[in-house]
Parts: sequence; C-alpha cells; structure tokens
Amino acid sequence: MAAVISDVQALTFDVFGTVVDWRSGVIREGRALRPDVDWLPFADDWRRLYRPTLERVIRGELPWATFDELQRLMLDQVLADRHVEGLTEDEKASLSTVWRRLDPWPDAAPGLSRLKERFVVAALSNGSMWQLICLAKHGRLPWDAIISVELFHAYKPDPRVYLGAAELLQLRPEQVLMVAAHVYDLRAARSHGLRTAFVARPAEWGPDAAPERPDPGEFDLVADSFEDLAARLDA
Amino acid sequence: MAAVISDVQALTFDVFGTVVDWRSGVIREGRALRPDVDWLPFADDWRRLYRPTLERVIRGELPWATFDELQRLMLDQVLADRHVEGLTEDEKASLSTVWRRLDPWPDAAPGLSRLKERFVVAALSNGSMWQLICLAKHGRLPWDAIISVELFHAYKPDPRVYLGAAELLQLRPEQVLMVAAHVYDLRAARSHGLRTAFVARPAEWGPDAAPERPDPGEFDLVADSFEDLAARLDA
Repeated sequence: MAAVISDVQALTFDVFGTVVDWRSGVIREGRALRPDVDWLPFADDWRRLYRPTLERVIRGELPWATFDELQRLMLDQVLADRHVEGLTEDEKASLSTVWRRLDPWPDAAPGLSRLKERFVVAALSNGSMWQLICLAKHGRLPWDAIISVELFHAYKPDPRVYLGAAELLQLRPEQVLMVAAHVYDLRAARSHGLRTAFVARPAEWGPDAAPERPDPGEFDLVADSFEDLAARLDA
Repeated sequence: MAAVISDVQALTFDVFGTVVDWRSGVIREGRALRPDVDWLPFADDWRRLYRPTLERVIRGELPWATFDELQRLMLDQVLADRHVEGLTEDEKASLSTVWRRLDPWPDAAPGLSRLKERFVVAALSNGSMWQLICLAKHGRLPWDAIISVELFHAYKPDPRVYLGAAELLQLRPEQVLMVAAHVYDLRAARSHGLRTAFVARPAEWGPDAAPERPDPGEFDLVADSFEDLAARLDA
C-alpha cells in the first residue's frame, strides 16, 4: 500500500457516477414512461445541469434545497428545453425520483464489502440522506455510514462537506480517503487535506463520451474499479 | 400488524441499552484494567450520570459537546466519587471509549436484519456518529442509516432530535416508529407525533434491578426482543 495513505482509516465515496450508474437508470425509467422520446441526450442534459445548479446554491443565488428538490427543478427545465410535453404531474414526480432507484456498477457492492473489512466506508454525496438511503437499499450497498451534504446545508465542492465529514468521523483530514470518478471532487478534497483515489468510470457518460482523466500523479491512487481499489489498499 | 402503525416506513432505534448491553461491556473492560475494583456499581453510576449531564447541556449549563467528551467528563467524576485511583491518562482515555466497543444483545443484529427487509432501520442515539459507527462495525449491525444527535447539536429528549430524524428521512412523524427500552425516550417521541415501540431489556441494569415498565397501552407496541418486534410488524 502506498506509504502516503498508511494512516487512512475511513474512505468516503462520491455516489452518483462513482457508485451508481445514473445514465442507464434514467434512460430505463424514461423509456418506460415515454418510448417516443430520445432519453440518451435527455439523461445527459439533466445530469449536466447539476454543477451549474449547485453552483447557484453555493453562490447563494438559490436558497438551500435538498437534491430531490433541485432535481425536480432541473427536470422541469430539461423537459422544457427538449420540448417533451404531455407528462402528467404524477409522471414528472415519479421520474424526478429516479435518482433513488439507480443500479450500482457491478463491482461497487462487492468492492465496498471488501473495503469495509479494513476501513470505515461512508457515502459522501450531494444526494439527500433519503436518496442515499434508498440507493443503498436498492443496491444493497453496505455503508458503515451515509453522510449527505444535507447535514451541512452545503454542496460539494464546498469545504464544509469534506471537513465536516472528517469531523463527524473524528479523524484528521489526512486519515480520510475521498474516492470519486470526478476530478473536480477529488481536487477539492485534496485541497482540504484529504487523501484521494480516482476510480475510472469510463461508461458514466455513455460509450461515445471522452472519459475523465486525472493528471499523472495528482491523486494518491488511481483504480479501475472498487475491487481494484480494495486490492491496492490490501483490503 | 396494528392498524395504527400501518403507515410506518422507518424504524429509529435508541442504542445504549436498547441495542447494545453497556453494563457487561463496561464491567468487562474495567476488570481487565483493574481487577481489584468493583465494576458493577461503577458501571451503573457512570450510566446514571447520563441523564443529569445531558439535561445540563439541554438547559445550556454545559456547552455542546459530543457524547465521547461528556462520557470522559462523567468517567472522571465517577472515578473521583468512587475513589478509584492510579489509572494512567492512557488507561482513562481508553476506558472512556468503551462505549464504542459494546456487544449487542443477542437478538439485535438478527432482528434488525429481518426488519431491514421491510423498513428503513436507523440508529437514533445520543451517541456520536463515530461511536455509533464503531458500535455498528463491532456488532455487525446492519443499519440503513446512523442518525446521531450530533447532527442536531441536541440530546434526546430534545424535540429537534425526533423531528430532525423524520425530516432527514423525508417522512411525517407518524411514519416513523421509535424503538427503545426507555419510557422517557418513547414518551418524548410520542409527544412529537412518532409511533412508539417499547422493547423490554430487563437485564440492562443487571439481575437485581427493577426493569422499566410502560403504563398499559401507552405505546403502540410492546415487544420482548427485536425478533419479537419483527414478528409483530410482519417483517
């Protein structure tokens, strides 16, 4: 195991994209609702609204709201932008909660089970507590703890999220390893003293999208899967 | 299943005394440290300081502190009251963290596993997040979520704890069933609209103590164990 992380006691995980495959889940539920709509770009547009919407909350332009509420706002925007009409209020309400019913990547639950034998494994996600609980039950994810940004009324990459998680775990930041498939998340975690592991999820945005690639050496670990991460951490 | 709780979606559990057996754990670690001390009354005195100490925090006489910190304060007080001398600083520090290493009652983990198939099962305890995570790992307790009062900077029976838990679970209070072996906890939960289940733990204070008994009919359910509770809830 890399010496730099020999002091790590807990692993905190980004969830949407890193643990669960949002794209295929959104497409599946969208198609079941309206087979005539092209849900591939719809899913991508919806997900792409995350960052700017959360940035508006971080800047104070939008009041604090749970991710469930923000995802409903974003859904309405994508429906309008893509001229998808005729969904009933119940259908929109149901579709907006698809983020609670996404399947994990195949290696996620087995990898977490291995890592859990050696470390505390915790979700650290922009999802609400309730979304993350539902996702864990749906995918049988064996979290030791779920730490939603809702506990801090802040969204990643706000420092309060990373430092607040370390505080709840009664650990110093360098004893916490942030695991994510997203460079922005890991860069923020690193800047606040956490250790970092990049797990590649090349299929996150579908087969035609360019996968995220970290700069060489910028994170403590790079892995292909949670099983690979467990092996690199001797778990 | 009782009609009154047909709408329940989540069960929240008191932990110290209800899920884990604090008395035998404190006695075991105390004896390993100092075989000459009578740890039975020591354990009871320590535990008995909970309520008055937490009441001081609730009244604002003590500033907010985690349960770990308060338990260390209480330990020092019991050591002084009972004239136990000669423990090193490391020994006191270690003993004060025994609350992270308590064994669950034998029916707790199997009962939670059954209940988890039908409901969200969450710890709702005065313990800190870290204590509750350690207890869950130690006893392999399959929580869906751990909700520490630390998230609210309040201690039970403060209303913020019960209502804050329901809010995090995105449920109405009557959709949440509070499970505890302590009447004071359930009375507070009930007064804020939660459903209530009393689980008897007659051995909590040892074989010679009078067990807690609720008034007939004051709680929605009364059970002998988590397995019994699961059966009563058709789980």
